[in-house]
Amino acid sequence: MVLYVVGLGLGDEQDITLRGLNAVKKCKRVFLENYTSVLGIDHNKLGEFYGREVILADRDCVETGADQILDGAKDEDVAFLVVGDPLCATTHTDLIIRARELDIPVQVIHNASVMGAAASCGLQLYSFGQTVSIPFFTEEWRPDSFYEKILYNKKGGMHTLALLDIKVKEPDFDAMARGRIVYLPPRFMTVNQAVEQLIEIEEKRQEGAYSKDTLCVGMARLGQSDQKIVAGTMEELRHVDFGAPLHCLVIAGDVHLMEEEMLKQFRVSEQ
Amino acid sequence: MVLYVVGLGLGDEQDITLRGLNAVKKCKRVFLENYTSVLGIDHNKLGEFYGREVILADRDCVETGADQILDGAKDEDVAFLVVGDPLCATTHTDLIIRARELDIPVQVIHNASVMGAAASCGLQLYSFGQTVSIPFFTEEWRPDSFYEKILYNKKGGMHTLALLDIKVKEPDFDAMARGRIVYLPPRFMTVNQAVEQLIEIEEKRQEGAYSKDTLCVGMARLGQSDQKIVAGTMEELRHVDFGAPLHCLVIAGDVHLMEEEMLKQFRVSEQ
Repeated sequence: MVLYVVGLGLGDEQDITLRGLNAVKKCKRVFLENYTSVLGIDHNKLGEFYGREVILADRDCVETGADQILDGAKDEDVAFLVVGDPLCATTHTDLIIRARELDIPVQVIHNASVMGAAASCGLQLYSFGQTVSIPFFTEEWRPDSFYEKILYNKKGGMHTLALLDIKVKEPDFDAMARGRIVYLPPRFMTVNQAVEQLIEIEEKRQEGAYSKDTLCVGMARLGQSDQKIVAGTMEELRHVDFGAPLHCLVIAGDVHLMEEEMLKQFRVSEQ
Repeated sequence: MVLYVVGLGLGDEQDITLRGLNAVKKCKRVFLENYTSVLGIDHNKLGEFYGREVILADRDCVETGADQILDGAKDEDVAFLVVGDPLCATTHTDLIIRARELDIPVQVIHNASVMGAAASCGLQLYSFGQTVSIPFFTEEWRPDSFYEKILYNKKGGMHTLALLDIKVKEPDFDAMARGRIVYLPPRFMTVNQAVEQLIEIEEKRQEGAYSKDTLCVGMARLGQSDQKIVAGTMEELRHVDFGAPLHCLVIAGDVHLMEEEMLKQFRVSEQ
């Protein structure tokens, strides 16, 4: 039978395509990947909408226990749902490769992803360079390997899309030390946190990839009815409340006239 | 009322989202932009599916005669359909700005675009640099401004997505000289033509942005049921028949292990 890898788009149950919905309705078992992104709707509501139980698939389930998903896919169709587009993140490549190794036909059903919807900020998608991911800093671990990528994009006049960290199902080590398996509540990096971290790195590196005065666009809940887009300097965005997750950030490179025109409506001063 | 700018995705009538279809069904007037991309289905069939007449909107209509589209949008909902995602190309920015100037609320409904679906080639979307457009060469006009962009991407290890030219409703100047208004049949650049032009430019510039031996991936009809993806050197792709439009081309930068693994299935030698 078939493993359908179905993009759900960015908003809620209404953002699936007709092709995607038809595929889901063929499947008895329906998994939802829930550790790289989130929809603006609860998975139970999604299940009600499909008339199917929607099983949450965390990182363990997808990366080390793919058998749970692929088991039985030889006998009946299985749907693996992904927020956004299934191929825009690399996370699902493994699952697809394993399915092929097991001779299970894979059908990918595309949808909108943050990497396309980022064009909502008014900057031209053609002029984006490589994408970076910004992880949560900890006391000991403050990685900055993405800095060089932003710098290279900037020198070439390109914009940079920064995807912000998500922590889902993080173990609570304190509780575990006391012998209990407990997970911390999910955490989603805000635009404010991302900007704080970026400014800290620039202060350390001082190679001029950006500054507090660099034009950026913060975006929250892209593609959802209450999406919020605000353009301003890094320093300005530090103090803007973007509300509920997910957030992402664009660091502008060279900004052309038409882009200026589109950005106007999102300026901090216009809010 | 509302101007709905609705992405149709890449395949056929089944690739619209539920949200998009609901919007179309609210509208009496439905336009389809038909000069930057094409679906794998005729616009009349699309109209039958919606139960609406679908009016083709060419470049003149959208860029200089937007009034035809916006006329009446104050009194009733209007849908403007775009293959792929409405914001991934910059073509539709003007229409959105003009609608806002006229105080017509605009709602954008996202969908999959070639800029996301290009990840189907097995190269990671994160590692793509700026996108280039390759225009048809003529006897007198052989522009190569995109060469520097490919070069800059390459030096930074990034892949380049090249979108290939489309000529729809081109005037037939010979006929026009004889006083008749005649349009030439539509033309779509093939992967083969793109590669020919790229090799000609490298021979002229000789700055090493790529060579005949550079790994590329040619893609045709992305997101459609008969999509074709072939990976090989530029020289190899010169001779591969990709069939019907649309085609696009990825010029690979640094290729990582996981990307190699994904590319294997598409190699010329595997076809």
